[in-house]
Amino acid sequence: MDRPGAVAQLRAALLRFAGEHLVDGERWCVALSGGPDSLALTAVAATLRPTTALIVDHGLQAGSPAVAATARDQALTLRCVAAQVLCVDVGTEGGPEAAARAARYAALEQARAGAPVLLAHTLDDQAETVLLGLGRGSGARSIAGMRPHDPPWCRPLLGVRRGITHAACAELALTPWQDPHNTDPRYTRVRLRTEVLPLLDDVLGGGVAEALARTATALREDNDALDGLAADAAAGGEPGADLPVASLTPLPAALRRRVIRGWLLAGGAAGLTDGQIRAVDALVTAWRGQGGVAVPSPVPLQRLFAARRAGALTLYREPVAD
Amino acid sequence: MDRPGAVAQLRAALLRFAGEHLVDGERWCVALSGGPDSLALTAVAATLRPTTALIVDHGLQAGSPAVAATARDQALTLRCVAAQVLCVDVGTEGGPEAAARAARYAALEQARAGAPVLLAHTLDDQAETVLLGLGRGSGARSIAGMRPHDPPWCRPLLGVRRGITHAACAELALTPWQDPHNTDPRYTRVRLRTEVLPLLDDVLGGGVAEALARTATALREDNDALDGLAADAAAGGEPGADLPVASLTPLPAALRRRVIRGWLLAGGAAGLTDGQIRAVDALVTAWRGQGGVAVPSPVPLQRLFAARRAGALTLYREPVAD
Repeated sequence: MDRPGAVAQLRAALLRFAGEHLVDGERWCVALSGGPDSLALTAVAATLRPTTALIVDHGLQAGSPAVAATARDQALTLRCVAAQVLCVDVGTEGGPEAAARAARYAALEQARAGAPVLLAHTLDDQAETVLLGLGRGSGARSIAGMRPHDPPWCRPLLGVRRGITHAACAELALTPWQDPHNTDPRYTRVRLRTEVLPLLDDVLGGGVAEALARTATALREDNDALDGLAADAAAGGEPGADLPVASLTPLPAALRRRVIRGWLLAGGAAGLTDGQIRAVDALVTAWRGQGGVAVPSPVPLQRLFAARRAGALTLYREPVAD
Repeated sequence: MDRPGAVAQLRAALLRFAGEHLVDGERWCVALSGGPDSLALTAVAATLRPTTALIVDHGLQAGSPAVAATARDQALTLRCVAAQVLCVDVGTEGGPEAAARAARYAALEQARAGAPVLLAHTLDDQAETVLLGLGRGSGARSIAGMRPHDPPWCRPLLGVRRGITHAACAELALTPWQDPHNTDPRYTRVRLRTEVLPLLDDVLGGGVAEALARTATALREDNDALDGLAADAAAGGEPGADLPVASLTPLPAALRRRVIRGWLLAGGAAGLTDGQIRAVDALVTAWRGQGGVAVPSPVPLQRLFAARRAGALTLYREPVAD
C-alpha cells in the first residue's frame, strides 16, 4: 500500500482535529505567515470549510508588506473566502520574540470575529518548545508544550512532522516564503532546530522529536490532573483569605505545592519561582517558627510576605523601606 | 565570605541527607568504583560514620582486579572500617550496561548486611539520566530521574555538581581511577555528557544540568502524587478482577490511565507502551463496541487481551495460533 501523500496526511490530521474539537461546518480562520507550514495548512483548510486567512504584518523586516501581500494573494488563489492583512505594532516587553508573539495573538483575537483560529505549529515546533522549557527547569508546567486545542486557538498539526508541510507545498506547487529568521542562529529556537535536535537524534538513535512531543502530551495531562485536583482541594477559600495548615498536611507534595501556588497567585503574587513556593511549603512541612517568606508581587512600593500564624498560612504586605 | 571548599560542600550534603533520611549513628556502606565521585564520597563518609566500602569488580576490563585492589587500599587508608571487593558475573540481559548494573546492585544488596548504601551519583548524572529518559518519550515516569532515597540506596550527592567531587579529590590529594569507559563515545551517556549537555548549555544560556535536575525532582513528585492517587482510586480491586467503567469515567485522564496501567500490570501484563494503555483507555472514553486490545504478557504460548464487557474492563487469554 502506498503511503498517503503529504496533502492527504494534512487533510486527515485536520479532519480528525475538527471532528474531535470543532462544531460541524463552522467557518474558521487560519493564521498565515506565508511560510510552508501555514501555507500548506491554509491550502488544506480552504478545501474543507469557509476559510478566512489572517496575515499578520509585524513590520519588523524590510519588505514585510510585500510578504504579506503575496500571502494574501496566495490565500485567495487557494479559495479562501477572505484574506486580511493585520498590521501590528510590536512593543518591547519580555524581549523581541515575546513582544511579537503578544502583538500577533492580540491582532488575531481581534480579527477572528468569533471563529476558531487554526495555527500551523507542527510536531517539530512542539519538540523545540519542550527543549526550551527544559532549560527553565520549572517542572511539568514549563515542558508541557503547546495545547492542541486552547480555544480559540487550534493546532491540528502538532502530530505532523514539518517535512510533511514542506512536501505538501511541493505537491501543490506552492512557493512558500522563506523567513530569514528561521535560519538565523541568533535565535535560540533556530539553534535547537539546526544543532541540538539533530545531535540528540544522532546520540539517542532517532525519534527524538516524536519522543519530546509524546512527553509534552503526557506531562500536560499530568499537570492538568494535578491542577484540577489542587483546585478541588482549595475549593471554598476566598482569594487572600488565610489557608489552614491542617488542610495542606494530608496532601501529597505535588498537590500541596500547587494549592500553595494557587493561593499565592490569588493573593497577589506574580512571577513565582519554584524555590519561593518550596520556601512557603516549608512553613507547612518543616515548621520551626521561621519568619515570613518574601514573594514577588507587582504592587509598587510594597513587599509581599507569606507567613505562618496560628495554624494557618497568611499573606501580609510591608512598605518598601528606602 | 569565602565559598566553602569542595570537601566541606560534600560533607554538608552528606550531613543534610543523613539528617533527613537516616537513623542517627547507623553504620553505612559506600559503593566505591575508585573513580572521583565515589572516592570523594568515601573520604567524606568515613569521617562521619563507621563506613564499609563495597568495591564491585565487574571483570569486564583488563586490569579490573588491580583497580579494585587499589580502591580497597584507598578506602582503608581513608579510615573505612572495612573494604570488601565483590567479584560479579555480568550476564547479557538488556544489553551490557543494564546487565552490569543489575549484577552490581545485586552484589551490593547481598553485601550490605542491612546497612544503607551510599551511591555517588551527582547532579550531572541526574541530568544525563533525564536526557536519556527524554529519548524514550514515555512521560514523567521515564524522565523523573534517580531518587535521592530509595532504601537501601542513598544518593546524597544528587544536588552536587561533578566538578565538586573532582575538586574534593584534589583537596585531599587523592588519585582517583579514570575509567576509560567514561570517555568512550560508543556509550550514549558519554556523548550526552561530552557533546549534548555542553551544546544545550551554549544554546540555552547555561544552567541546563541544574534545570534538568530540578525538572527531575518536580516530575518525580508529580508522578508519585498521581501514582498514589491512582492506587487510592483502585483500592479494593483484586488483581485480575474486572474494572467497572463507572469507576474510571469520573477520573481525570492522567489518573484514569494510571489506574488502567496498574490494573493491566496486576492482571499479568508487562512491558506496556503508552499507545497500548491509550487503546485500553479508549474502551472507556471512546466506546463504540470495539474488540479486545492485545497487551504484552510474558506468559508463553498465550496472548493477553483487555476488553469491555457489561460495563467493565476485563482481561482474557487466548492460546497463540500458529
